[in-house]
Amino acid sequence: MELSKRQEHIVDIVKNSGPITGEKIAEQLNLTRATLRPDLAILTMAGYLEARPRVGYFYSGKSSSQLLTEQLKHYIVKDYQSHPVILKSDVTVYDAICAIFIEDVGTLFIVNEDNDLVGVCSRKDLLRASMAGQDIHNIPVNIIMTRMPNIVLLEEDDLLLYAARQMISKEIDSIPIVKSKGAGKYTVTGRISKTTITKLFVSLFDQ
Amino acid sequence: MELSKRQEHIVDIVKNSGPITGEKIAEQLNLTRATLRPDLAILTMAGYLEARPRVGYFYSGKSSSQLLTEQLKHYIVKDYQSHPVILKSDVTVYDAICAIFIEDVGTLFIVNEDNDLVGVCSRKDLLRASMAGQDIHNIPVNIIMTRMPNIVLLEEDDLLLYAARQMISKEIDSIPIVKSKGAGKYTVTGRISKTTITKLFVSLFDQ
Repeated sequence: MELSKRQEHIVDIVKNSGPITGEKIAEQLNLTRATLRPDLAILTMAGYLEARPRVGYFYSGKSSSQLLTEQLKHYIVKDYQSHPVILKSDVTVYDAICAIFIEDVGTLFIVNEDNDLVGVCSRKDLLRASMAGQDIHNIPVNIIMTRMPNIVLLEEDDLLLYAARQMISKEIDSIPIVKSKGAGKYTVTGRISKTTITKLFVSLFDQ
Repeated sequence: MELSKRQEHIVDIVKNSGPITGEKIAEQLNLTRATLRPDLAILTMAGYLEARPRVGYFYSGKSSSQLLTEQLKHYIVKDYQSHPVILKSDVTVYDAICAIFIEDVGTLFIVNEDNDLVGVCSRKDLLRASMAGQDIHNIPVNIIMTRMPNIVLLEEDDLLLYAARQMISKEIDSIPIVKSKGAGKYTVTGRISKTTITKLFVSLFDQ
C-alpha cells in the first residue's frame, strides 16, 4: 500500500519523537486529533506504527516491504517438501546416472545399509566422474559423492527461507530433510530444491 | 494486514450490495458515517474496496494474498538477469562439460558463426552423452543440444513471474533472454534460472 504525504509525515514524526501521543502529533501538524484519527488507524493497522494505551505511538521500524513479506516467514519446509530419491552407497555411478533420468531429479541422496544418510550426489558429481573416462559401470557412487558431515541438512520445521538462503550461500540445488537418529545419524524424509522455491514463487501469484 | 470483524462485515456488505454509499453502509451497521470513516479509509487504501465520487464503494475483488503479491508483479527479467554462458556450436561435448565447471553454471547457450542462438545444452544433455560411452572429445555439442525453435525464450521486458512459470511447466532450469534480429534469429543477452528466483525469494526477506 502507498502512503499519503501526510501519513509519511506522521511516520517521520513518530520515528523522531516516539513514543508520542496522538495529541502531540496533531499539534506538530497543526491539525485536530479527529482529523488525524483515520491516518493513525491506517498506519497502526498496516504495521508502520504501534500504539500503546496511555503511552502513545511507537515506530515499528518496519518498512513497507518488510511488512509485505512478514507473512511469507511462516512457510516451513515440511509443508513444501518433495519426495527424496535415495540410493544405497554401493550402486554404480552408471546406475546413479540412470536414477537421475528415471526419477527426473537433479540430486540423489546416498544411504548405508542402515538407511543412514552418508552422502549427496549431484548432476555435476556424476558429470565429473563420467567425463574423466573412468569405468562408470564399476565405480560405486560413494567414491564420487559429497560425504557427511559436509552436507547441508534441514529438519522439517526449518523455514523455507533458511533452506533458500542455504542453497544460495552454499551454491547447491537441493537439500535433504532429515530426522535425527542420535549419534550423528540421520534418516532422509524429504527434499527441498530450487524448484520448490520457484514453484512457491509462482503459487504466490496464483492465489 | 488483518481485518477487524467490522471491516470484514463492511467488505461483505459492499461485495453483496455495491456500488453502495458510505451512508448506506453505515445504516446497515447501525453506525454513523463518521464512525465508519477510518474503516472505509483503511479498506480503500489497502485495496479491498474502490471508491468513486458520487457513486460509492465497489468491491475490488482482491483477496488479501492477491493484494500482498500485486507488488511482486512488477519484477521484470532484465532487472534480475545473470550473465549468459555462450559457446559456438562446433565445440566438443568435452569442452562444453569443462565450461559448465569453469563458468559454474547449469546450462549453456549455443550459437552459430553469426552469434544467432541455435540451441541450449543442459547438464542432463551432457550427462546423457557422456554416459553413453560416445567419444565426447570428438562429438560437437550441436549433436546433443536442444535445438531452435524448441527453446523457451524471454525478452528483457518479460515478467519474472512468466519466466518462473515457464521453468516449472517446461521443467527446465534456465532460460535465455534474447533480442530479436528478425527472421526468427535471436542474439542472447542474458539468462534467468531457478537460482535467480531463489535469490529473489531470499532478497524479499532481507530488505
